[in-house]
Amino acid sequence: MNHSSNEKEPETIEPLRYLSTPGNLPLQTRRDGCGALLETQQETTQANLLSWKRTGKMPRVGIQQQISKLQKTESKTEVATVETELLRDYRFGQQQLIEMWGHACAIAITKAFPLSSLSKKQPTLLVVCGPEQNGSIGLVCARHLRMFEYEPTIFYPKRSPQSLYQDFTVQCEKMDIPFLSYLPTEVQLLNDAYNLVIDAILGPETDHKEVKEPYAGMLVTLKQVKIPIVSVDVPSGWDVDEPAKDGINPEVLISLTAPKKCAAGFSGKHFLAGRFLPYDIQKKYELNLPEFPGTECVIEL
Amino acid sequence: MNHSSNEKEPETIEPLRYLSTPGNLPLQTRRDGCGALLETQQETTQANLLSWKRTGKMPRVGIQQQISKLQKTESKTEVATVETELLRDYRFGQQQLIEMWGHACAIAITKAFPLSSLSKKQPTLLVVCGPEQNGSIGLVCARHLRMFEYEPTIFYPKRSPQSLYQDFTVQCEKMDIPFLSYLPTEVQLLNDAYNLVIDAILGPETDHKEVKEPYAGMLVTLKQVKIPIVSVDVPSGWDVDEPAKDGINPEVLISLTAPKKCAAGFSGKHFLAGRFLPYDIQKKYELNLPEFPGTECVIEL
Repeated sequence: MNHSSNEKEPETIEPLRYLSTPGNLPLQTRRDGCGALLETQQETTQANLLSWKRTGKMPRVGIQQQISKLQKTESKTEVATVETELLRDYRFGQQQLIEMWGHACAIAITKAFPLSSLSKKQPTLLVVCGPEQNGSIGLVCARHLRMFEYEPTIFYPKRSPQSLYQDFTVQCEKMDIPFLSYLPTEVQLLNDAYNLVIDAILGPETDHKEVKEPYAGMLVTLKQVKIPIVSVDVPSGWDVDEPAKDGINPEVLISLTAPKKCAAGFSGKHFLAGRFLPYDIQKKYELNLPEFPGTECVIEL
Repeated sequence: MNHSSNEKEPETIEPLRYLSTPGNLPLQTRRDGCGALLETQQETTQANLLSWKRTGKMPRVGIQQQISKLQKTESKTEVATVETELLRDYRFGQQQLIEMWGHACAIAITKAFPLSSLSKKQPTLLVVCGPEQNGSIGLVCARHLRMFEYEPTIFYPKRSPQSLYQDFTVQCEKMDIPFLSYLPTEVQLLNDAYNLVIDAILGPETDHKEVKEPYAGMLVTLKQVKIPIVSVDVPSGWDVDEPAKDGINPEVLISLTAPKKCAAGFSGKHFLAGRFLPYDIQKKYELNLPEFPGTECVIEL
């Protein structure tokens, strides 16, 4: 451990790390050309984190400073590995994680689109949910938005047979949240009926080259809507590792756990949601998460 | 349904309902001397709720007005029935509920005791956890408080064999939250070491006349501490239906779902936590919950 690295002021500003798709080696096992650099970064971060643990204060790193250094963030870690560790080693439950993420997404949406800012008479939202975890996060998000006095409608074309996901569905049904039986292909109907669309369709586990029906067709529709789209974690249809050139074009992106690589050049409003990552996992993957203000569960990057 | 009851202004101010111990009949099956009154109240509330659902706005009921009418709140509902319905009919998961309640408790504590208000140099807290659900809520609360830069220490003398509760324990251990191996009987040690004690020992399911060791001894200690106590849901050792005359004396009480009967005369800071109750269950049990501000998950009563 190199405590003296703490003295080099500029090095203490660690860029926020962007996660890549499953399949890459986690940082600590990489020994390629960047090995030495990575090690130095790791030591600096360790020193920072030790000081942080000791003082109870995260090193004060300006978000603007972080953003300005994002381009230099090239190291890769595994999205799936972090989640596997959370579930297996840190013993978080999937239900618990989905609840926390969905709640945080709802909070982010209230920040990006407060009730008072909505142009339509009714605070209507369309939450489009995919078949896997991303879709369940959308369901939880819709339930909380209903509690915050929005009027969500859900489109959830392929309901999961998993009882965990079914439970989240029943919770929405019992909150009297309406479910659409089909997504109109006439885009103007969507533009007229809703203030915004929440894209909780495909998560980072999806191969963007193999998007099947009904999702491929839905993405064609969503590419044409004129109302804002809010994407959960990864804009559906995008490659996790780079922004799509002709995909949907969300106005807001809510990254979960840590931003994915494709978000690096994202020009819309970008939130990071989920303030529960154990410090050891933040450290292991050098996530360099920004300091969440007060008791907030989301932060705008 | 009697819509005209809406016109009688004073009747639209429904008092917040206080829940009693398990074992009482749920409201809708009671047909005793208060039957007629209950029915009228129920109709008024139904009319309010219909208007609320239609407009998306809960009837504006001043909290002070509610508090002033609390003495008149005599009807009883079942604590356990509400939770059973949440789990069975509304398909909430126990893990999900405990996570939401624990998070909300942590938020309430940051409101009652902001970091800047703590008198000791370190923001230390002692979270005392019981063997059942109340204890698990304490564990989740401790984990979130750690995220909010407090320094919780946990005393959890009898760990549950249930894997759900064990998971919450591991989550705390992996956050490097220290666990005490025993509770000092020398009260001055506690007064000196911690800013406050969080009492997550016994929940509403416990018979206050049958508190066993080690909890009976712990309550003797907690009765003598001079630092503030924050109780989760029910002050440990109190009868759920009435305030204890010689029990522990919390400065803050955080009621979950709805206040219990014993909280009616509580003179300390009183929070209601958990903004997720489906409207139908609020209506069925005539909970008359206050309007939570903004996106807050707790409200001070």
